Amino acid sequence: MGIDYTNILESIYNDILNGENKGRIADYIPELSTINKEQFAVCLQGVDGKQYGFGQYQTKFSIQSISKVFILSMAYSILGKEVWKRVGVEPSGTSFNSLVQLETDNGIPRNPFMNSGALVISDILLSQYNDPISEVLDFIRTLTANPNINYSEKVAESEKHSGHRNIALCHFIKSFDNIINDPNEVLDFYFKLCAIEMTCEELSKAFLYLADDNFRTKNDKRILTMSQAKRINAIMQTCGFYDESGEFSYKVGLPGKSGVGGGIIAIHPEKYAIAVWSPKLNAKGNSYRGMKFLEKLTTETNSSIF
Amino acid sequence: MGIDYTNILESIYNDILNGENKGRIADYIPELSTINKEQFAVCLQGVDGKQYGFGQYQTKFSIQSISKVFILSMAYSILGKEVWKRVGVEPSGTSFNSLVQLETDNGIPRNPFMNSGALVISDILLSQYNDPISEVLDFIRTLTANPNINYSEKVAESEKHSGHRNIALCHFIKSFDNIINDPNEVLDFYFKLCAIEMTCEELSKAFLYLADDNFRTKNDKRILTMSQAKRINAIMQTCGFYDESGEFSYKVGLPGKSGVGGGIIAIHPEKYAIAVWSPKLNAKGNSYRGMKFLEKLTTETNSSIF
Amino acid sequence: MGIDYTNILESIYNDILNGENKGRIADYIPELSTINKEQFAVCLQGVDGKQYGFGQYQTKFSIQSISKVFILSMAYSILGKEVWKRVGVEPSGTSFNSLVQLETDNGIPRNPFMNSGALVISDILLSQYNDPISEVLDFIRTLTANPNINYSEKVAESEKHSGHRNIALCHFIKSFDNIINDPNEVLDFYFKLCAIEMTCEELSKAFLYLADDNFRTKNDKRILTMSQAKRINAIMQTCGFYDESGEFSYKVGLPGKSGVGGGIIAIHPEKYAIAVWSPKLNAKGNSYRGMKFLEKLTTETNSSIF
Amino acid sequence: MGIDYTNILESIYNDILNGENKGRIADYIPELSTINKEQFAVCLQGVDGKQYGFGQYQTKFSIQSISKVFILSMAYSILGKEVWKRVGVEPSGTSFNSLVQLETDNGIPRNPFMNSGALVISDILLSQYNDPISEVLDFIRTLTANPNINYSEKVAESEKHSGHRNIALCHFIKSFDNIINDPNEVLDFYFKLCAIEMTCEELSKAFLYLADDNFRTKNDKRILTMSQAKRINAIMQTCGFYDESGEFSYKVGLPGKSGVGGGIIAIHPEKYAIAVWSPKLNAKGNSYRGMKFLEKLTTETNSSIF
Repeated sequence: MGIDYTNILESIYNDILNGENKGRIADYIPELSTINKEQFAVCLQGVDGKQYGFGQYQTKFSIQSISKVFILSMAYSILGKEVWKRVGVEPSGTSFNSLVQLETDNGIPRNPFMNSGALVISDILLSQYNDPISEVLDFIRTLTANPNINYSEKVAESEKHSGHRNIALCHFIKSFDNIINDPNEVLDFYFKLCAIEMTCEELSKAFLYLADDNFRTKNDKRILTMSQAKRINAIMQTCGFYDESGEFSYKVGLPGKSGVGGGIIAIHPEKYAIAVWSPKLNAKGNSYRGMKFLEKLTTETNSSIF
Repeated sequence: MGIDYTNILESIYNDILNGENKGRIADYIPELSTINKEQFAVCLQGVDGKQYGFGQYQTKFSIQSISKVFILSMAYSILGKEVWKRVGVEPSGTSFNSLVQLETDNGIPRNPFMNSGALVISDILLSQYNDPISEVLDFIRTLTANPNINYSEKVAESEKHSGHRNIALCHFIKSFDNIINDPNEVLDFYFKLCAIEMTCEELSKAFLYLADDNFRTKNDKRILTMSQAKRINAIMQTCGFYDESGEFSYKVGLPGKSGVGGGIIAIHPEKYAIAVWSPKLNAKGNSYRGMKFLEKLTTETNSSIF
Repeated sequence: MGIDYTNILESIYNDILNGENKGRIADYIPELSTINKEQFAVCLQGVDGKQYGFGQYQTKFSIQSISKVFILSMAYSILGKEVWKRVGVEPSGTSFNSLVQLETDNGIPRNPFMNSGALVISDILLSQYNDPISEVLDFIRTLTANPNINYSEKVAESEKHSGHRNIALCHFIKSFDNIINDPNEVLDFYFKLCAIEMTCEELSKAFLYLADDNFRTKNDKRILTMSQAKRINAIMQTCGFYDESGEFSYKVGLPGKSGVGGGIIAIHPEKYAIAVWSPKLNAKGNSYRGMKFLEKLTTETNSSIF
Repeated sequence: MGIDYTNILESIYNDILNGENKGRIADYIPELSTINKEQFAVCLQGVDGKQYGFGQYQTKFSIQSISKVFILSMAYSILGKEVWKRVGVEPSGTSFNSLVQLETDNGIPRNPFMNSGALVISDILLSQYNDPISEVLDFIRTLTANPNINYSEKVAESEKHSGHRNIALCHFIKSFDNIINDPNEVLDFYFKLCAIEMTCEELSKAFLYLADDNFRTKNDKRILTMSQAKRINAIMQTCGFYDESGEFSYKVGLPGKSGVGGGIIAIHPEKYAIAVWSPKLNAKGNSYRGMKFLEKLTTETNSSIF
């Protein structure tokens, strides 16, 4: 705390902006493929209240899988440890195994950050709320003190039409009775979650509840107990980046979560929450520039959690 | 630093000593099955130089897979990033997949803490040294400033006769050309590594090099660069406990490594290295009391790295 | 030809009728679970025109997966070898692998008698016909010279509501672009196919086209070329009984296909087609009494194809 | 019987000899790689006593996996159905799964024609005989009434040095206790079996015991009961060609077994045994010309068993 990150962040930001920008955007969702690929944004929120923004940090983008952290936090705060009866906390090994794994484990997804796990968490929220997408949006709006958070109907619709693998997963889990509600309703909710749009500034603000042990919302509410927040960070550390989770842990050394829209959120407990965004993805589906930025940041500042 | 852990450690130690002691010892290695199952030892070394020992913390036991961290450190300090051409840093998902995984990944083990990965690291050291087991023992003796570290011939022999799965793994990797030396020599070295015997006191001292950024041996040598040490911690965090790695990360929140002899080492960067030992293992093959102790320690002191 | 099977068939039928009747009926489809479990029917059609019927051989039952042979024959007669671009002819190993296999093989099912393969064949017919279920019923009505063949709306509906795994499979294959049409339409057609109801007499008549090299329908049409018929028999031999295909080949030694309704059809090329039916299923999902009957028949008459 | 195959065999032989000769020889066994790749031999033995030979049908070659049929026959004639407690009769799906399958099935190989299954059968014979390789050679010498059958020491040695995957398999099965003897002795025996050398003439003679229901050796001994012979044919039909078993069944329609030396044996029950040999292998490891020849033979003569 009290450190001024301006120079180091700016210097790394410029280095990477001026370097090569490799990778491909996620064109399997047609609505995502029209974006300007050269955009690159960073926003860091210190637990000390300082904010550092670079590039298009006030431009909205599709947060995609990053929303899985929000819904897990909601389900965990409601059900507590009961959540782990329906989804595990182990890394999945490879993306390749997702369906095999469900077969071996009788429909219990290995962790809540795989698509299968997030579908189960979605099902949990659907059992709790009449209008779950509104509740999730309210949750994020409260975290960011910003009513201007929504999802894109177009992107949600686009996901639906190209989302045959997610539809398959949801029905497969249903066949093991680990989806309670109508799979079509679960999927409808899930596709909207993926389509939530936020800026790096909004994201980094929203995630302070995982960085700051004393975090409280404007109306003085805790989101999670300190122990719960630590545990969500632990799961992000081991499972946040699909089959690049080990690589991210190794190179960056922070808990984090990425989305195929090119966004990444990372947490330095007791220090900061940082959001980075750049649409081009590496071979594992994580933002090329985002990964580079975070690796450089923690290496140059010796600030991994290890 | 400067904190006195005596009371909290003693209180948790007694709680667990007086509680139930469940699980089974690793009887597939006959030599390990004759041990007194009720033993329970803890030793914490602060980076500030303080030491806290409880129970049989000066009794030797078979460190088994914990030695994988030593050999990885040696190979990494010699080859640097080249190591990762022959072994990955990703968690393995389940033990179930170990052989499938090798097939899919053309003989590159997913991480250095699976048996397959440690066999590859052993092969690397065998290419470096004429007498690799002596070099490893010297490495540990230097770390602990204690010439009295050795392996048990009897246990090594016992491993050899019941180690058909490891023999299978080694030849399987050889068929992909990711073992360079004669598999029988690699296995011979590997079984000796598993049979190294240390006390909790010795183990916790030995592992200070991963906790203390400024660690130097008696003769003022660094073992690893700061960045390398952080990265080994990161791999322990995601891969140190086989298919309970996520669970350990979730419950304990520290990088660590366990062995089927009932030992566990855990690292709190910049604070301490801790070794716990109790022979009875839970269903995943990790010390029942050891896991309980570490979970309680980090929960009650809010001292996970998250 | 010219052999009189009456005595041997009757004797085996009575033996098995009077023996134990083990196993469970397929209760995952609620409509199938209300049936009288003790029913046991046999009907053999010689290529010489003789017919032998025992038990409830004129009672309709749900033919389930046996319909996969009809649709494969239709698709094969239309597309010829082109069919094998979208589905293989290899046995699947275990049921366990069905989803993994699709992943490994990029959405090409290993054979047309797995559910995944039959979904692809259904998709092929859906591309050929406006009203594919009517075409399939016409095909069977022509084969049996019997207009009284239909499917059960109730069973089709029942399959739909419990068929989450099939829904998952269909969308999963769609994600590899090996389903061309709307998955919901494919599934709708598929569930009707499973719900076709026939008697043993009708089934054994219908399948003469695979037993008799000179088979022609009433209006003197060949269904398949001689070579095509032989090849469908070959696929039934290796793939007709899921993960009991080897066992059936070993014990019975005839090409055949079973359904979870308790029916089995088997072909002795140039000699006969035989249909057996009894609702209780063994652990692998094949009719307990049906398997016993066919094993006894070919063993006692030395009449396997080997 | 009584048919004269000379013209049709000669015509097909010449067609294929003059056609393209694609594929690669099995160069992973150095001793096999020095062979003249253009050799092409055929020998058919009718159950009526007629013999038809073409090309180098009196040249010895390495029969490799074809020997698995001999050892299965020996073990089956000794133990009867007890054999199936240690090895199954189901096709394996893909080669890919061999190790996974063992893990899933607790060390019981899916069939006796996979390497894993043949290792278990080898172990069975090793428990029966002091000098099992001599017994196998005697068995073949009796079948062929030819004392001049042996294995190549050089090839056996060559297999040993490149056979890491087989060594892995054997130790892996040992870890499930489904290998009783010392794995090194089992492997030694197994590598010799693979190195047996025979001509097409000898092979086709040797296999008459699976084609002729009334087969007896010179000294009037039955090898197997009629039912046992039929069942071995049934297993060859479903499992004889690894992951091309379905393809072979589909295209050729005969039970058969191939070896990586380029030999194939096929059986037409009650008609003939045929051996073909040509060293170049297709992508699945089966003789390119051998497969072509057999497909053409049964298609042009309408003589598949279906």
